[in-house]
Amino acid sequence: MRGQGAILKPPLVKRRITREEEAGMADIILIGERINGMFRDIGKAIAAQQAAPIIEWAKKQQEMGADFLDLNVGPVTEDPVAAMRWLVDTVQGVATLPLALDSTNYNAIEAGLERCQRPALINSCPAERPKIERVFPMAKRFNAKIIGLTMDKKGIPKDADSRAALAMELVAAADEFGLPLEDLFIDPLILPCNVAQDHASEVLETIRRVKTLSSPPPKTVVGLSNVSQKTLNRGLVDRTFMVMAMAAGLDSAICNVCDEELMNSIATARILLNQDVYADSYLKVFRKGR
Amino acid sequence: MRGQGAILKPPLVKRRITREEEAGMADIILIGERINGMFRDIGKAIAAQQAAPIIEWAKKQQEMGADFLDLNVGPVTEDPVAAMRWLVDTVQGVATLPLALDSTNYNAIEAGLERCQRPALINSCPAERPKIERVFPMAKRFNAKIIGLTMDKKGIPKDADSRAALAMELVAAADEFGLPLEDLFIDPLILPCNVAQDHASEVLETIRRVKTLSSPPPKTVVGLSNVSQKTLNRGLVDRTFMVMAMAAGLDSAICNVCDEELMNSIATARILLNQDVYADSYLKVFRKGR
Repeated sequence: MRGQGAILKPPLVKRRITREEEAGMADIILIGERINGMFRDIGKAIAAQQAAPIIEWAKKQQEMGADFLDLNVGPVTEDPVAAMRWLVDTVQGVATLPLALDSTNYNAIEAGLERCQRPALINSCPAERPKIERVFPMAKRFNAKIIGLTMDKKGIPKDADSRAALAMELVAAADEFGLPLEDLFIDPLILPCNVAQDHASEVLETIRRVKTLSSPPPKTVVGLSNVSQKTLNRGLVDRTFMVMAMAAGLDSAICNVCDEELMNSIATARILLNQDVYADSYLKVFRKGR
Repeated sequence: MRGQGAILKPPLVKRRITREEEAGMADIILIGERINGMFRDIGKAIAAQQAAPIIEWAKKQQEMGADFLDLNVGPVTEDPVAAMRWLVDTVQGVATLPLALDSTNYNAIEAGLERCQRPALINSCPAERPKIERVFPMAKRFNAKIIGLTMDKKGIPKDADSRAALAMELVAAADEFGLPLEDLFIDPLILPCNVAQDHASEVLETIRRVKTLSSPPPKTVVGLSNVSQKTLNRGLVDRTFMVMAMAAGLDSAICNVCDEELMNSIATARILLNQDVYADSYLKVFRKGR
């Protein structure tokens, strides 16, 4: 509180939002992370072709306001192609959301795309040939979007300049293969803050720069929970970074949509960034609107 | 979780921080807001010259990690000069922290400065003559710092350009009157998000720009609780904006240092911005270190 009544007296009427502003208020795209073989319950369910846990998490994340459901068969499946096919079918049986097919095995992604009833998101493609040549035409064929990673054979660079340069390779690939730029989601690859503490601010700067690479710009996305891996206070670290990334211009996150405090932080960040209209009930409005 | 173990495998050793980095890790400066006549208990205590509530809040805020204590006699005092003098004496009897003298009455500030045992912070001076001519020489005489507001006779401008232009007037005044630039705290004046929703992102941009105005740059400060005035979920709004402002480069805030969730958010933002070294116990370390 500054305590200077005269100075900080607010305007008497609430401001009206212009039509252009309203059109610019793109919703944040939240990709539910939970159907991933790295989680013990999902890993076991995939191995045993037990649908119940998959169905439960698909329904729950849809109810909590996910826009996409990420599907990852996990690292230990013997037949990832069959596993992805089964996951897609199982989830589509109970949820109407589009899917993000999450694998480094492009045959598994392709098998999943063949089953998808709605345009999907391919998660993911690094900024390197020949992977670009495998993924981008596949996206085009299935009308899918792509998460493009700011990494290549040499790994993940530290600084924002180098990350942005790799993002530009992906933008050029979108142009080359005819993928609409708004269907390209650049992931600047946030790393755990307990071991790569100098990366987070570079990722924030990358998010800012990606928005200047092209017109229209590509979207940006982060795998949020990575930032808090093996830290205590995971939720606090996640939502703190999410707010910072949104202020830098983030469009999307793969995250725990069942974390209410995270969802409240996102709703509040949207108010402060003037992306949703303030109402006393804005937290409820955000949840209901999803 | 991205679920791509190979890609996101963290480096095997924790990175060491260079000496230059360590030197750059300036602590955030937190100014306890609570001794302000706008709060009912403080207003009554000032009117009755009852020291107990003042002493309680001085001790409590010092324990909670404040760097300065803001003292504001409130809007209804008959004799603000005497009230400020009494407040300064009362607080200095129990707390060793430096004080921020918060008033639009410069005679009250001057009376307070005469009593201050440690270099104080003058809160505040707008970017307009003749107020600059009254405040800056006074700061110089008492070796005080100044909070300079990005407003003038015409009020608070909306856009970051105009706010930064007013900040530049204050930087020029510091140069003119020989105030060290690191003793000038620019306050870009955040307004309540429920009535001036388009201001917050301009304030964030102003914070970024102020850092480029001079070398060394002035500090930046916000009166945090203003952003949440008359909103529900005040704490959530405050800490969400605080994190955004820190990511934009904020140096200081007048805030509720007794809000544990706010303090935890600040500690986490410092980790993510690489301003403090990560340890599993970082929340405790942050509190103890203050």
